[in-house]
Amino acid sequence: MTAVLDIVKEIKIREEVCAADVERVRSIVASSGFFRPDEVAVAVELVDERLARGSASGYRFVFAEMEGETVGYACYGPIACTVHSYDIFWIAVQHDLRGQGLGKYLLQAVEARIARLGGRRIYIETSTLPQYEPTRHFYLACGYKTECILRDFYAPGDSKMIFVKVL
Amino acid sequence: MTAVLDIVKEIKIREEVCAADVERVRSIVASSGFFRPDEVAVAVELVDERLARGSASGYRFVFAEMEGETVGYACYGPIACTVHSYDIFWIAVQHDLRGQGLGKYLLQAVEARIARLGGRRIYIETSTLPQYEPTRHFYLACGYKTECILRDFYAPGDSKMIFVKVL
Repeated sequence: MTAVLDIVKEIKIREEVCAADVERVRSIVASSGFFRPDEVAVAVELVDERLARGSASGYRFVFAEMEGETVGYACYGPIACTVHSYDIFWIAVQHDLRGQGLGKYLLQAVEARIARLGGRRIYIETSTLPQYEPTRHFYLACGYKTECILRDFYAPGDSKMIFVKVL
Repeated sequence: MTAVLDIVKEIKIREEVCAADVERVRSIVASSGFFRPDEVAVAVELVDERLARGSASGYRFVFAEMEGETVGYACYGPIACTVHSYDIFWIAVQHDLRGQGLGKYLLQAVEARIARLGGRRIYIETSTLPQYEPTRHFYLACGYKTECILRDFYAPGDSKMIFVKVL
């Protein structure tokens, strides 16, 4: 518990996106070891999109910085054709800093920003594979509810679980 | 029934996207009368994206042409981070030509292309609002099943229904 408080106290949130974030995001997402190369590429592509198109890309970011180093991030944005629904596309923490409350801190930073933007429903999706059990546990512990499951969505035997939090 | 066969016999499918399709899509989608201006803008944006980025946009199109005029279209694409799932983002027919089998013909054209690309699951989303009852009936009649409902997704009282067809 002390460790959690300690590390979070040192974190600064940054929202501006810069060119160096392309490699930072690649490194953070890859550090987990359980995303396929094509999935890492998608995470990076959202940073590219943001850099190319600015806020028109629909992608917003929060970066967690500790002693000048970027150690985690989340990417979120409004869902087109909805009045006040938001997606959180990615949330990831440098692997060797997991389990210290950084993810929860990032998630709360995103939720506060979505609330300020007038958002009312936040959606997060993840896989039903066993290796995502900690991820699913994390969302449930942060107040998200399972809304539905799309069977075999990612691949045969790999379904998509959609979580929602109503603000 | 004769009418259905007649009109479909005259249809040519085109897949190339050209600059004039921006206004054609706007006109077809707006002709239905039940999309909000921001929704029409999203439909048009997918054409813009395709023109700007080519196949890297992830958006593929089929256009239904009758006597040289574009009278309907569908937009679909592979879902990132999935092995063989596809989304159909839009399917729309010029309003005064509805009810003659054009939509079904377009949908089958898309399904055949997705199958050739190795796709196995096709997702279509729509609203639970009463005005989308004909749309939902259309998907069910074309062999799609309701997979789940995201409550109040679009707006309070306006939920999202996700349909799937397994090829």
